[in-house]
Amino acid sequence: MQLVIGNKNYSSWSMRPWVLLKAFDIPFSERKLRFDFTPGSSFYQAMAEVTPAAKVPVLLDDDGFAVWDTLAITETIADRHPELAIWPRDARQRARARSLCAEMHAGFGSLRGLCPMNIEADLSAVGQRLLASEPKLRADLARMQAAWEEALAASGGPFLFGAFSAADAYFAPVVMRITRYGLPMSEPCQRYLAAMQAHPAVAAWVADALAEQDFIADDEPYRVSGGPQGQLR
Amino acid sequence: MQLVIGNKNYSSWSMRPWVLLKAFDIPFSERKLRFDFTPGSSFYQAMAEVTPAAKVPVLLDDDGFAVWDTLAITETIADRHPELAIWPRDARQRARARSLCAEMHAGFGSLRGLCPMNIEADLSAVGQRLLASEPKLRADLARMQAAWEEALAASGGPFLFGAFSAADAYFAPVVMRITRYGLPMSEPCQRYLAAMQAHPAVAAWVADALAEQDFIADDEPYRVSGGPQGQLR
Ligand SMILES: N[C@@H](CCC(=O)N[C@@H](CS)C(=O)NCC(=O)O)C(=O)O
Ligand SMILES: N[C@@H](CCC(=O)N[C@@H](CS)C(=O)NCC(=O)O)C(=O)O
Repeated sequence: MQLVIGNKNYSSWSMRPWVLLKAFDIPFSERKLRFDFTPGSSFYQAMAEVTPAAKVPVLLDDDGFAVWDTLAITETIADRHPELAIWPRDARQRARARSLCAEMHAGFGSLRGLCPMNIEADLSAVGQRLLASEPKLRADLARMQAAWEEALAASGGPFLFGAFSAADAYFAPVVMRITRYGLPMSEPCQRYLAAMQAHPAVAAWVADALAEQDFIADDEPYRVSGGPQGQLR
Repeated sequence: MQLVIGNKNYSSWSMRPWVLLKAFDIPFSERKLRFDFTPGSSFYQAMAEVTPAAKVPVLLDDDGFAVWDTLAITETIADRHPELAIWPRDARQRARARSLCAEMHAGFGSLRGLCPMNIEADLSAVGQRLLASEPKLRADLARMQAAWEEALAASGGPFLFGAFSAADAYFAPVVMRITRYGLPMSEPCQRYLAAMQAHPAVAAWVADALAEQDFIADDEPYRVSGGPQGQLR
C-alpha cells in the first residue's frame, strides 16, 4: 500500500492520512510528488497516472486501485482495520468525530485560505495582522476553539476523543497553522496543541517537513525566501 | 429521529440525507427551517439551539444529540444500519463511492458556486451563458461526467454503483443543477439523470420543492421573481 503525497512542508491534506497511518502503525510506503501547479508539470503528469481527481493525497493498493480524497481515505482505512479504533469506539463519540471532520473538510474557508500550512515558517507577524483585519478568520478560530473545547471536556483529553483518533489526524494541519501563525487559543486548546505536537506521528511529519528545504513560491503568499531565516514580504 | 433541513427548493445539502433516508425507508420526522441569512434571523436562532455548527442539515436524536454535516450524517446512518447497503457492499466499490462523495463534498466549487440549486426554475438560458464564459464550470462538468461514466460502466447502472446508494443521494442536487441549468452531458450520464429523477425519493423531494413557492432573494442570483413563470434578471 502506497500513500501519494505532496510536499510535507505545505500539503495539509497529505498530512492527515500520513499521520493517521503512522499513529496506528499501519505499514505503507510513501511517494512524494513535488508540488508544481503549472499546467502539464511533472506533478500533474504523475497525478494523471494515479487518479482522475488529480489531487493528493491518494491511497494506492499494490495493483494500482486508487482511493482519493482525505475523508474517503480515512474511512477506507477504518473500514479495512476494524481491529483498530481509527474512529472512537463509542457510537456517539464516533458520530461527533465524523461531524467535526466533515465540518473541517468543507468549512473553515478563511483559516484555510488565509493561513496556508507552512511548517518551517514563523508567520506570527502575519498572523497578528490577519487577526486584526479578518473578522472571518476570527470567526473560524472561535468555532474551532468551541468545537475542540467541547470534545476535550467530554472526553477528558488529551486528544479530542481521549485516545488519538482520525479526528486528531484531521486537525493536525490546523495545529500547524495555529502554532505557525501564532493564533491565540484558550488554555484547554493550548494543552491540546501541545499534546498534538508531542505525538510521535505528528512529530515525525514535522521533522520531515523541516528537512525538506524546498521553497514553492505558489504556496508562499507571505515569504520571499525559505528556510528558518525566510524573509517575509 | 429528526432531520433539520432548509428550503427544499434551494437547500442542496439538505436534499442529500433526506433522499437517502427516504430511499432506504428509514423513518424520520422533518423540521424545515426557512432560510434567512440575516444575522439574528429566526433561522439562525433556531439553528443555534440545534448545533453550534449552525448549518443545515442536522440529524437529531430524540434526546437532542446532534450529528451535523452531510457526510457525517451519511456515515452515521450507514453505521446505525448495517443491515442496509447504504454504501455498496463490495469493499472497493465502497471505497470508490466514498472517494466520489468526499471529492464532491469539498470540490466542484464552480458548479456549486455558479449554479446554485433552484429546483422550480428554468435556468437553461443562464446555463448557456455560463458554459460559454466559465472555463472552470466546463472543467467541473467534464470531471463529473468522467467520474459518473467510470462508475456506471463498472457497475452497469442504473445508479452509480448498481443499486441506489449513498453516492446517488450525494449527487442528487447535482442532477438538479444539471437539468435546471440545461448543462450538456453524455448519453450514459443522460440515462443516469433520468434514472435519478425517476427515483421515488428524488421525485418526492422535487414535488415538495415545487409546492414550496417561497422565493428567497439570497439564493436567487439569476431571477427577480419566483414560480414557474419566474423572470430572469
Ligand atoms: N478534498 C481533497 C483536497 C486535496 C487537495 O486540494 N490537495 C492539493 C494539495 S494539498 C492538491 O493536490 N492540489 C493540486 C491542485 O489543486 O491542482 C482531499 O481532501 O484530499
Ligand atoms: N458542509 C456542510 C454544508 C452545509 C451548508 O452549507 N448548509 C447551508 C444551506 S444548504 C446553510 O445552512 N447555510 C447557512 C450559513 O451558511 O450560514 C454540510 O455538508 O452539511
